Amino acid sequence: MVNIAVLGYGTVGSGVVEVINTNQAIVNKRAGKEINVKYVLDLRDFPGDPVEKILVHDYDVIVTDPTVDIIVEVMGGVDPAYKFVKRALLMGKSVCTSNKELVAKHGAELIAIAEENNINFLFEAAVGGGIPIIRPLNTSLTADDITEITGILNGTTNYILTEMAEKGSAFEDVLKVAQEKGYAERNPEADIEGYDACRKIAILTSLVVGEQVNYEDIHTEGITKITKEDFKYAKALKASIKLLGTSKKIGDKFYSMVAPVMIGKNHPLINVNGVFNGIFVHGNVLDDVMFYGRGAGKLPTASAVVSDVVDAAKHLKDNIMTIWSEEEATLGDFAEFKNKFFVRMKDKGLDDDQMMDIKNAFGNVLYVKAPDVKDELAFITEPICESEFAERIKTLEDVYSVIRVDF
Amino acid sequence: MVNIAVLGYGTVGSGVVEVINTNQAIVNKRAGKEINVKYVLDLRDFPGDPVEKILVHDYDVIVTDPTVDIIVEVMGGVDPAYKFVKRALLMGKSVCTSNKELVAKHGAELIAIAEENNINFLFEAAVGGGIPIIRPLNTSLTADDITEITGILNGTTNYILTEMAEKGSAFEDVLKVAQEKGYAERNPEADIEGYDACRKIAILTSLVVGEQVNYEDIHTEGITKITKEDFKYAKALKASIKLLGTSKKIGDKFYSMVAPVMIGKNHPLINVNGVFNGIFVHGNVLDDVMFYGRGAGKLPTASAVVSDVVDAAKHLKDNIMTIWSEEEATLGDFAEFKNKFFVRMKDKGLDDDQMMDIKNAFGNVLYVKAPDVKDELAFITEPICESEFAERIKTLEDVYSVIRVDF
Repeated sequence: MVNIAVLGYGTVGSGVVEVINTNQAIVNKRAGKEINVKYVLDLRDFPGDPVEKILVHDYDVIVTDPTVDIIVEVMGGVDPAYKFVKRALLMGKSVCTSNKELVAKHGAELIAIAEENNINFLFEAAVGGGIPIIRPLNTSLTADDITEITGILNGTTNYILTEMAEKGSAFEDVLKVAQEKGYAERNPEADIEGYDACRKIAILTSLVVGEQVNYEDIHTEGITKITKEDFKYAKALKASIKLLGTSKKIGDKFYSMVAPVMIGKNHPLINVNGVFNGIFVHGNVLDDVMFYGRGAGKLPTASAVVSDVVDAAKHLKDNIMTIWSEEEATLGDFAEFKNKFFVRMKDKGLDDDQMMDIKNAFGNVLYVKAPDVKDELAFITEPICESEFAERIKTLEDVYSVIRVDF
Repeated sequence: MVNIAVLGYGTVGSGVVEVINTNQAIVNKRAGKEINVKYVLDLRDFPGDPVEKILVHDYDVIVTDPTVDIIVEVMGGVDPAYKFVKRALLMGKSVCTSNKELVAKHGAELIAIAEENNINFLFEAAVGGGIPIIRPLNTSLTADDITEITGILNGTTNYILTEMAEKGSAFEDVLKVAQEKGYAERNPEADIEGYDACRKIAILTSLVVGEQVNYEDIHTEGITKITKEDFKYAKALKASIKLLGTSKKIGDKFYSMVAPVMIGKNHPLINVNGVFNGIFVHGNVLDDVMFYGRGAGKLPTASAVVSDVVDAAKHLKDNIMTIWSEEEATLGDFAEFKNKFFVRMKDKGLDDDQMMDIKNAFGNVLYVKAPDVKDELAFITEPICESEFAERIKTLEDVYSVIRVDF
């Protein structure tokens, strides 16, 4: 029997208990051992809930119990999760977590401690919810020089952008509905400003590079400036606008960002809609692969956590190699990152002069039109590096919006 | 150092050597050991090729060499691959293979021998080429009761169907072009009759059920009867026609088949086009996940084989649990499998009488029309079991085509 303790009885924590109870026979068969939830830690009481009998308020009870083999950390946030997890690992207990903040900030250190103690620190649920991506990167995509990893990593923003695309609605209106439906939080900043996606692409990039990518180093933009009109152009181009977390290898460096990007109809992520997530990987011999599924939600996320519990139970005193050292990764300078840009600006009715200004700024551009959008000029540039674009766009007046383009 | 021997220097075999040479540093780092190709076995000589120095014609040299740790079997076919692989496993050498015929026919036995000898029999490349699907089923989707696995598992037929959909071409014409381009073999039977997809869905279903699914038990239809007109209706319905290998759990049994299916615009596999493959999995807590990538090709397939070599090298004397026993799985009776059906038949110009015949046969149906298709009636039935459909369709005359529908 393998005893586990679940830290935090919120959405994911109660999901973990539910998945283990519902799929008990399957989980035990896959683990080759009986998985037993010995403790649940929460500050709250849950009178009448079956976990009442195993609920504890004091972490010491759990971490000092030598019969506890695996700690499931699903509290979220860095404090006290970091202290709890580190202590568990140092006590020789494996940890499975869904906590992206914790993994993005302290992943390398916690992996190293697990390795030293011949146990495991696993975090499949920290990126892409139920989608298997951490374990495939770790154990399946091992024959390749991975040159790109790009994902739709946040379900809330993808839901909002999909609704805007399909219904022609404004950002604020969809956000309000998303909040009412529970798809967006009352304070939606972490999602809509791209902070959540930023931590996730930092984790994925760390696993690809094998070094610690600091999420603070990743240029991050959210979706709050995307408008109805932008989507009219996207539609006319048979494209869509998605919030992407992306890392691309150019030369021997990775260039990373989180930003809304206009992607074309042949992009592997173009049909990842609604609350779904998708993660695209390009390897030098594998070519393109894509993983798709539910990036959030109680049970899908819990499914990923429990798959880690199964893996930890199968490897109780045997570290699963994770290549992610504490060495700091040097990302490519964002200023040098090359992209095409879609630009919308006021049409001043001075056709030739204005088009000459645009030509002076960006050389040859592709003009685009959208039905029902008037008094604007819109165009797509050739690939140009970020710093150069930032300089040249200043030479144009009355610019309404700028979106990077990948097609 | 870990010594490997590659059996068969054809497309995949030369790809394996190329991937190991090209990505040497990455592969060694991921394995934690140096991977060395000690032998290549082939009946042919390759004068001038770098493998010339390590080429052997006699399998005995390889299998009796105690320094060889891992055998890569990429010869294809069951004979002599089965004998070679079994002997290697009995000699305590792990085997990695891309051979779907071998795995579909003898998978359970070879897995059992590997387990007894505390080594590994791995076959990531046998299904979905470069797409990680075997290892994810084995080690990631372990918390779920998997209730469906459905895949576009054959790139040749998917290329043909995609061309038919996009260009309105006839099956025979596209097949000819596919053969010229090397996407289809001169004898294309195994692909276009669905035999290849059948072996692959048998392997996937065995892994899901944990027992030996005999591919002979799986109802298999190919794509040779699909016409231009079928695609005109599909287009009108915003649907497409794909060759699917599918296993669905109904009650406690899996119902499996390989057949062309009309799928709607919201199906996760609808945008898997050209030579790409996609595999969709539904779990009771995970909900939907989908894996997408190149299902064939020298380097993508070799990438999957080498990822197995890395895994085998990491677990040289340590069996990776694979739940697939020699017990024979009992699939649900195909006659009881329920599907909707799309039916095209001659329009006899006797509207009321003919529609009454159809109503008598199938109750309420959904009539569908396609532009430019005349003198036909076409409709979609409600879900009906296979045996009942087979009986009732006999009551109608001049039926042109029948395709199962999943939307």
